[in-house]
Amino acid sequence: MEIKKPLAIVDFEPISRRVLIQEKQNFYQILINSGIRITSLCGGQGKCGKCKIIIQQGFTILNPSTSIEKALLTQKEINQNYRLACQCIIGDNPPKLVEESIIPQVKIFLPEELLIENFKILTSGVNKGVNLKPSIIKKYLNVRKPNLTEPVADLERIIASLSGSIIKDDDIPFTFEIEYDALKKLPNILREQDHKITLTLWNDSKIIDCEAGDKTQESFGIAFDIGTTTIVGYLINLINGKIYALDSALNPQTAFGEDVVSRITYVKNSEESLLHLRDLVLDTLNKIIESTCKSAGITPKQIYETVIVGNSVMHHLFLGIDPSYIGLSPYVPSVQKGLNLPAKEVGLQIFPNANIYMLPLIAGYVGADTMGVIISSEIDKESELTLAIDVGTNGEIIIGNKEIIATGSCAAGSALEGAHITHGMRAASGAIDTVHINPKNFDVSYTTINNKEPLGICGSGLIDIIAEMLRSKIITRSGGFNKQVISHERFINLEKSFEFIIASKEETSFHRNITISQNDIRELQMAKGAFFCGTRLILQKLNELQKNDLKIGQIFLAGAFGNYINKNNAKFIGMIPDISEEKILQIGNAAGIGAQNCLLNRDLRDKAHQLLKSINYVEIAVQQNFQKEYAESMYFPHLKLNYFPSLKEYNEIPKR
Amino acid sequence: MEIKKPLAIVDFEPISRRVLIQEKQNFYQILINSGIRITSLCGGQGKCGKCKIIIQQGFTILNPSTSIEKALLTQKEINQNYRLACQCIIGDNPPKLVEESIIPQVKIFLPEELLIENFKILTSGVNKGVNLKPSIIKKYLNVRKPNLTEPVADLERIIASLSGSIIKDDDIPFTFEIEYDALKKLPNILREQDHKITLTLWNDSKIIDCEAGDKTQESFGIAFDIGTTTIVGYLINLINGKIYALDSALNPQTAFGEDVVSRITYVKNSEESLLHLRDLVLDTLNKIIESTCKSAGITPKQIYETVIVGNSVMHHLFLGIDPSYIGLSPYVPSVQKGLNLPAKEVGLQIFPNANIYMLPLIAGYVGADTMGVIISSEIDKESELTLAIDVGTNGEIIIGNKEIIATGSCAAGSALEGAHITHGMRAASGAIDTVHINPKNFDVSYTTINNKEPLGICGSGLIDIIAEMLRSKIITRSGGFNKQVISHERFINLEKSFEFIIASKEETSFHRNITISQNDIRELQMAKGAFFCGTRLILQKLNELQKNDLKIGQIFLAGAFGNYINKNNAKFIGMIPDISEEKILQIGNAAGIGAQNCLLNRDLRDKAHQLLKSINYVEIAVQQNFQKEYAESMYFPHLKLNYFPSLKEYNEIPKR
Repeated sequence: MEIKKPLAIVDFEPISRRVLIQEKQNFYQILINSGIRITSLCGGQGKCGKCKIIIQQGFTILNPSTSIEKALLTQKEINQNYRLACQCIIGDNPPKLVEESIIPQVKIFLPEELLIENFKILTSGVNKGVNLKPSIIKKYLNVRKPNLTEPVADLERIIASLSGSIIKDDDIPFTFEIEYDALKKLPNILREQDHKITLTLWNDSKIIDCEAGDKTQESFGIAFDIGTTTIVGYLINLINGKIYALDSALNPQTAFGEDVVSRITYVKNSEESLLHLRDLVLDTLNKIIESTCKSAGITPKQIYETVIVGNSVMHHLFLGIDPSYIGLSPYVPSVQKGLNLPAKEVGLQIFPNANIYMLPLIAGYVGADTMGVIISSEIDKESELTLAIDVGTNGEIIIGNKEIIATGSCAAGSALEGAHITHGMRAASGAIDTVHINPKNFDVSYTTINNKEPLGICGSGLIDIIAEMLRSKIITRSGGFNKQVISHERFINLEKSFEFIIASKEETSFHRNITISQNDIRELQMAKGAFFCGTRLILQKLNELQKNDLKIGQIFLAGAFGNYINKNNAKFIGMIPDISEEKILQIGNAAGIGAQNCLLNRDLRDKAHQLLKSINYVEIAVQQNFQKEYAESMYFPHLKLNYFPSLKEYNEIPKR
Repeated sequence: MEIKKPLAIVDFEPISRRVLIQEKQNFYQILINSGIRITSLCGGQGKCGKCKIIIQQGFTILNPSTSIEKALLTQKEINQNYRLACQCIIGDNPPKLVEESIIPQVKIFLPEELLIENFKILTSGVNKGVNLKPSIIKKYLNVRKPNLTEPVADLERIIASLSGSIIKDDDIPFTFEIEYDALKKLPNILREQDHKITLTLWNDSKIIDCEAGDKTQESFGIAFDIGTTTIVGYLINLINGKIYALDSALNPQTAFGEDVVSRITYVKNSEESLLHLRDLVLDTLNKIIESTCKSAGITPKQIYETVIVGNSVMHHLFLGIDPSYIGLSPYVPSVQKGLNLPAKEVGLQIFPNANIYMLPLIAGYVGADTMGVIISSEIDKESELTLAIDVGTNGEIIIGNKEIIATGSCAAGSALEGAHITHGMRAASGAIDTVHINPKNFDVSYTTINNKEPLGICGSGLIDIIAEMLRSKIITRSGGFNKQVISHERFINLEKSFEFIIASKEETSFHRNITISQNDIRELQMAKGAFFCGTRLILQKLNELQKNDLKIGQIFLAGAFGNYINKNNAKFIGMIPDISEEKILQIGNAAGIGAQNCLLNRDLRDKAHQLLKSINYVEIAVQQNFQKEYAESMYFPHLKLNYFPSLKEYNEIPKR
């Protein structure tokens, strides 16, 4: 099966969803076919005007605005590049590009109104919503005034009013706690607007703020995903559950080590190093708070709660907890349970008595980010046995269904993040991110991020290259260059080895070839082998525990990386098991969405707490047959071809 | 009945208990007869050497050390004025005093070893103990180490160890919270002494500290009684329940108003005034913390909890809560419920994550101090209907038994604190505090505090003077000077009125007479009338509620003042109802003891919480018959003599 060069690549923001377009379609169809639920009353007939999208890139390959759009959109909207999804057609305008090898890209922003319906937010890919039940509730009360017959104190009168407004079974009047700061201002705030007051409650049990008058509409929360490389913050209105702003930034700790192990090494230098790394990440979060608040037109003091996910080392560094012991066998974190911590103590510059909820850590190398993936993807509700992988320096693997869940972490190395690859780079501007090779003439076509002149190859590009090189029989199943083809002009014969040219020096800005070396292929083999072998060993453990012989029925690819890779190619190189394409779902930044969901629905924190007790953690590298499994997994797609029965192409690809 | 001039007055510290000695007795007998339980194995036979006391004042009227003492005490102890209570006899050495009118005083310090038995502390007077069950528990654990098979996080292994050491029914492993500061230091503290660690737990549910090794013996708490005038702190070892040090200081807010109303007026000036008064009291508490820790040889960081009582205005000012509305009808405080607040937020310089427990307030003028009195005196367990009064600027009145409790506050004015009295003064050095008048020749004998030359008259002296003037028929039942005797040489005839000389100018340091004027008597009448009338009206309300006609069966006199007044004289002037002497108990600083008890036993906080719901508050001044009752109560002992049937002397005292 030859994969057709796509017509275009569409990136949907802010849900970080990439879709490859093979044929002319309008965006309403594309969204529906991709499983992204949107608000539309007329079902794509161009009548309701609800399916508004914003075009950010790729105007040249779209049709011009239709008369329907001119009727249903305002001039201002049209000026701001709004279109109606059902009217906007991709591929209608034949692309005119300088380089034929470049696949055109379109970037679409989906306004929140389009995505959200009925207090539900969408988790991209798997379409799982969440009911709005935040920890933070604001209550507006008209408090009874005291008199000589009933000289009840201010707080007690307020609690009596509250009791009427919150339905609870037990003895309410005396179960409320109050923050000291709120207590201090209470008597004057209460009388400022004639006993009309707004209380901010946390978990229906603690009064964390009081304001004069009705301030019930001013309630925000922020969810953070602290990645080793990237930190993302989502500012969410807790009244309607909508994302009002989002921002991301490079994790500035990167300067002190690319991966978690090197950061642990840095921390061991001195006590100040820990505080230094803590301050760096804290500053970044505070900057994101500032920028998102500015976008949304609110003040940071209106943010009453924060939910945070991150791997165990990021979790510890953010809290200023020494992560050293995560780096030493048996690799234990200092704490696993979910934590509620006061913002003012941690140093987040939001409402001082706001709560910071940190999702629980599963193990030293399976962190709160993985818990976020489980929460948002709801693996625990699946009937089919589901494999979820979150690709990064450490690949976190989750296998489970409604019966059982097991997780583990495989040391995938940072090849997929561009490290140790001759022309490797992060998924930044100019990175080659999708690649197609013509098997007949070895012509290479590719896209780069932001359509910039190519600078290097990022992880998704690398997977495409290897898969395409296999299909074109440029490399063999054991990962060596095919001696039959190394005379081709795309090969460079170096002293001891060969390199294959992906982008020629004429195409690059720095006037040198971007190539793939034998070593690059080896790096990828180790990475993909680690994933496959990890998956096998966790599945084996899980079958032992269940006394069964379950097979993986579907796959969730999580994380920005998981979202951008070509899932067929990931399967083709043997990184993930051989199941049919429609059973492989790209679920976006599932960790970040898990944080958002926990912010929006506090019951999910109890669920995380329960999951923590039931999840089986597997230490992959200490499993008995690890070495053998790993070695076999390094073959493309695997030493045992019968593991990948659907990949008939391999019958023609030489083993060595 | 003529009251015999006492042989001596003995003050027992630190329990603030005064005993009048009428006959030669040893201190073992005095202690036992006064109901003060002490440790003694031999029952006062001079065999065990356990009943050690320390003489602080009054050496001249005691016998010299006996041979038994020389055998059972060390030389060091003898040098430090230790005696054995059973060997030390009062009145054995005839007093040789300059002034015959002075009653000799003895001051005894009771070492903690003497007072405490079986984890119980004594509440002076009513002998009610408390079981040791502090909120703070230290647990020493030898925590299991992690391994690859069970790579459990640090906190989770600790919690597993804890679960074994704390017996609880429900799902323990995940109910513990941990303070952020403790969490941060956890991984390194745990490994400092090979996984041997001491945890400090609050309420069996929150880990507030962790230390390497066994630190279980270092656990302290401090109880404070914040009075309008005096602040007292009791440093208590939470392992054995003993008081290790105590200290008191003048409330520095006194400079901004003697009573709570003038402090409220000061606060209304500006927002800074509130913070200023807050800082003053906070500084004083911190100084007491420092001084008591120094005495006990510990550091403030070893104090893990504080319990505080005080009237509602002191409570609010300490917390920086605007008390203005307590000063305005309907006189409501800002909060009534018991509060748990973090020391670091309030500003107490003890262990930063220590809890401050503030006892609940009953009403604007019946504060946490009154709750402390109820808790320590256990009125709620009495079968007999009990009247408890805490005398101060505002007199708090409690009437109750195991069926019902009612409280109220009467505006007694500050006459009993020395205000508005010509020669009035506080109970400080040089204050005339007990007085005896010879009815035959009007000779006056008195004692002064610290045996200093007389400077003025304090509250207990004033009560004695009025009672003795009545007995000697110097004044009439309506409070006027008896015209039959004003020709006596002790009277000074001023322009419009007379004054009676208590101490002549030859006896005073400032060479002027200390006298009692007609106006002084009126001030006392108003004060004592307020108490009696308040008592009557609360009793009336309580009988209405109970549909009954209960009579007061016993009286508790609380507070330093209540402890020092002559209870027979208080009854004689009609300040308290007419019941027999042995049913009138002086219970010491019951409010401060209430705070200590709540520090020692956390269940008492739940009890206070329950009491708050059941106590009936009576607003005395708005009761229908208040004016009439108050007017009648101003007579000595009352307009209606039949209210005081036992005071036969009144038959001979003229009404006007």
